Amino acid sequence: MAAMNPAFETAEIIAVGSELLTAHRIDSNSLFLTGVLNELGLTVRMKHVVGDQTADLRAILRTALSRSDVVIVTGGLGPTDDDLTRNAVADELGCPLIEVPEILARISEQFSRRGVPMPAINRRQAQVITGARWLANANGTAPGQLIETDGRIVVLLPGPPRELQPMFEADVVPAIATRTGGRRLRRRVVKTTGRSESQIEELAQPVYSQFVRQVPAIDTTILASPGLVELHLSCSGSDERVLDAALDAGVAQLQGALGDVAFSVDGRPIEEVVGRALHARGWRVAAAESCTGGLLMQRLTDVAGSSAWVQGGVVAYANEVKVEALGVNPRDIESHGAVSIPVARAMAEGVRTRFGADIGVSITGIAGPAGGSAEKPVGTVVIAVASDRCDVREFRFPGDRAMVRSFSVSAALDMLRRHVTA
Amino acid sequence: MAAMNPAFETAEIIAVGSELLTAHRIDSNSLFLTGVLNELGLTVRMKHVVGDQTADLRAILRTALSRSDVVIVTGGLGPTDDDLTRNAVADELGCPLIEVPEILARISEQFSRRGVPMPAINRRQAQVITGARWLANANGTAPGQLIETDGRIVVLLPGPPRELQPMFEADVVPAIATRTGGRRLRRRVVKTTGRSESQIEELAQPVYSQFVRQVPAIDTTILASPGLVELHLSCSGSDERVLDAALDAGVAQLQGALGDVAFSVDGRPIEEVVGRALHARGWRVAAAESCTGGLLMQRLTDVAGSSAWVQGGVVAYANEVKVEALGVNPRDIESHGAVSIPVARAMAEGVRTRFGADIGVSITGIAGPAGGSAEKPVGTVVIAVASDRCDVREFRFPGDRAMVRSFSVSAALDMLRRHVTA
Repeated sequence: MAAMNPAFETAEIIAVGSELLTAHRIDSNSLFLTGVLNELGLTVRMKHVVGDQTADLRAILRTALSRSDVVIVTGGLGPTDDDLTRNAVADELGCPLIEVPEILARISEQFSRRGVPMPAINRRQAQVITGARWLANANGTAPGQLIETDGRIVVLLPGPPRELQPMFEADVVPAIATRTGGRRLRRRVVKTTGRSESQIEELAQPVYSQFVRQVPAIDTTILASPGLVELHLSCSGSDERVLDAALDAGVAQLQGALGDVAFSVDGRPIEEVVGRALHARGWRVAAAESCTGGLLMQRLTDVAGSSAWVQGGVVAYANEVKVEALGVNPRDIESHGAVSIPVARAMAEGVRTRFGADIGVSITGIAGPAGGSAEKPVGTVVIAVASDRCDVREFRFPGDRAMVRSFSVSAALDMLRRHVTA
Repeated sequence: MAAMNPAFETAEIIAVGSELLTAHRIDSNSLFLTGVLNELGLTVRMKHVVGDQTADLRAILRTALSRSDVVIVTGGLGPTDDDLTRNAVADELGCPLIEVPEILARISEQFSRRGVPMPAINRRQAQVITGARWLANANGTAPGQLIETDGRIVVLLPGPPRELQPMFEADVVPAIATRTGGRRLRRRVVKTTGRSESQIEELAQPVYSQFVRQVPAIDTTILASPGLVELHLSCSGSDERVLDAALDAGVAQLQGALGDVAFSVDGRPIEEVVGRALHARGWRVAAAESCTGGLLMQRLTDVAGSSAWVQGGVVAYANEVKVEALGVNPRDIESHGAVSIPVARAMAEGVRTRFGADIGVSITGIAGPAGGSAEKPVGTVVIAVASDRCDVREFRFPGDRAMVRSFSVSAALDMLRRHVTA
């Protein structure tokens, strides 16, 4: 009979717990749940966090059930007074709680296995909403609950991730999977660098604005952070091959419009793209950094296996280090300044030679807040990449210290990428 | 007339953006906003995330306005088609948008200062809800908006934290502060390193368990991340001097119980504590890193003004760099391994001497996933600090690559702190 119901499309997640409404804690369970729900072809329509307040939870639950097919409530299943999810959901659905002897026996046994008598307050964890299926908890005392109501599903899950995740995979996924009408959602991410969000939008919008009109339609979202603009494509339907083919074609069209500012279409970060390109050429890289203070090396070595292509680097914060460790000519620093094309070039060539690397990269700049001048304001950064030839570029980055450092590293990784793949 | 209204008590936060409903992104702005709202004496009642869907945003906004005094909407103020917050809120409040010439002029000027013409799509960022006060954005193009409606406040803020945070502090906090009836919440953070969460709990619990019984009562929360355990104290009431005095006494008691594992009680991170201690002694530091790949240097140079105490550093990923750039004896590497006490010591002493620094610090270890052995498994890290004397310690850190790197840097900063202040 389930096949008669319309297929599930949307889910909504409600995290319960006053501690999630402080400045220190965040609901991270929803990331895991969203990933699994998306793979099942469901879109997460909204997420909510409510405190330990029955009225608030009931209000959110009511509106969630009015618009979403699957409503997942996490947390508030513990044994204490402020664990009110069981009661609030039972009241909202108009189904009383009943004690299940089998659950009570399991909880008592879990305690006696630890040599502890079951505290009386844990008894309420054996209460289940009438008509619900209870879900065994292998890693804790609180069972989950799954209720079908008016063709929708409400799921109650314990808050701790190590209890929630296996329970969701084992008992909830199969229950939802029979109700998705075979729908699946597939995704692609096109990553770009070296252009602003609006510049990418101008290049890509004429392409992706057509995506919503085709069959299957592709949704596109733009995400920007300093030095990185991503286009997220998603497409849902029943035939994964059709979805993948549509996404492949869409990605290819975007690549055509974006050219070489698109550096990755398979999720890889630029430091991994650079690493693989270096590795393919058999090159090892060395870096000389000033204002970025090690951030470039850190990104390069974030990639597992990077010891195969990273030789090492120098953080040359003081000018005497630029001279002593990298062989920069002190007269170049005197006449052009430490943030200048000749010094950047000498740093890249110096670190390449002295570290026995195939390619050297350097960053010298003014990250701020102090150190700027009229001629070279905060945000002025010079980057060089040297192999048997040398590329040098001067940039003027916006933002504060952290942003200038972040932009600088992205630009250096992009210059490296272009140099190595040229 | 504002004094006639009842004091504000509750706030609700709505984050807008389909990207926040994926498995990869989380709304972290609400943590910052919650912290500041709590200091103003407001409780955050609920948090929501909605996608780029006008109907969904309007539905949540409607219910939020029915129950909370302050409603903060973040994100969706960008220039693109899917940035719909301006229009959705205007429609829900029944107040049309109007273009403000002054904002348009500011946005054009921001582009021309970067030597770029303003893209046509940015024009919509100059639209403001009738009756709203617009809030200048020092770090981006999207202005914020603040609307008073029926004795409540609705605030629209741009999504990027570096735009949202200063705008909230400068323009929104003063507007809310006049309406809180004088209630305040004050906080302190005691930061510790080098001990696990349960070790800190054992030392601190006898002290802070008394805090809830005193007047004014102090709430204590423990937060742990690799290499850092924080005790967050908070206290609310109407007289800030009474609150501050209670917190000062509480912090002093905790410091007594924790001893020198507590490195900061004023919010400063350990890299700043280390930096100030170096600066006070007139010392300059140089670092030699292997498995942390620049992360230590990056932390040291994250502090504004760090060029006064950071000389520079070497990332010695390859063994030949350890030999050539740092003067490590290749026979030490051969007989003891690159991750060993003699090599760590030689790296710290080498970088100190070669970089002309007063103090050298080194990290050599196995961050994984590969490179471990039975004798030296993944997580084995040796750290040395050398001035006219040398401290060396071997650690065995738990966790994956990122965690081992993070623990290593925390431990190195702590060894530096103890060496410099000894």
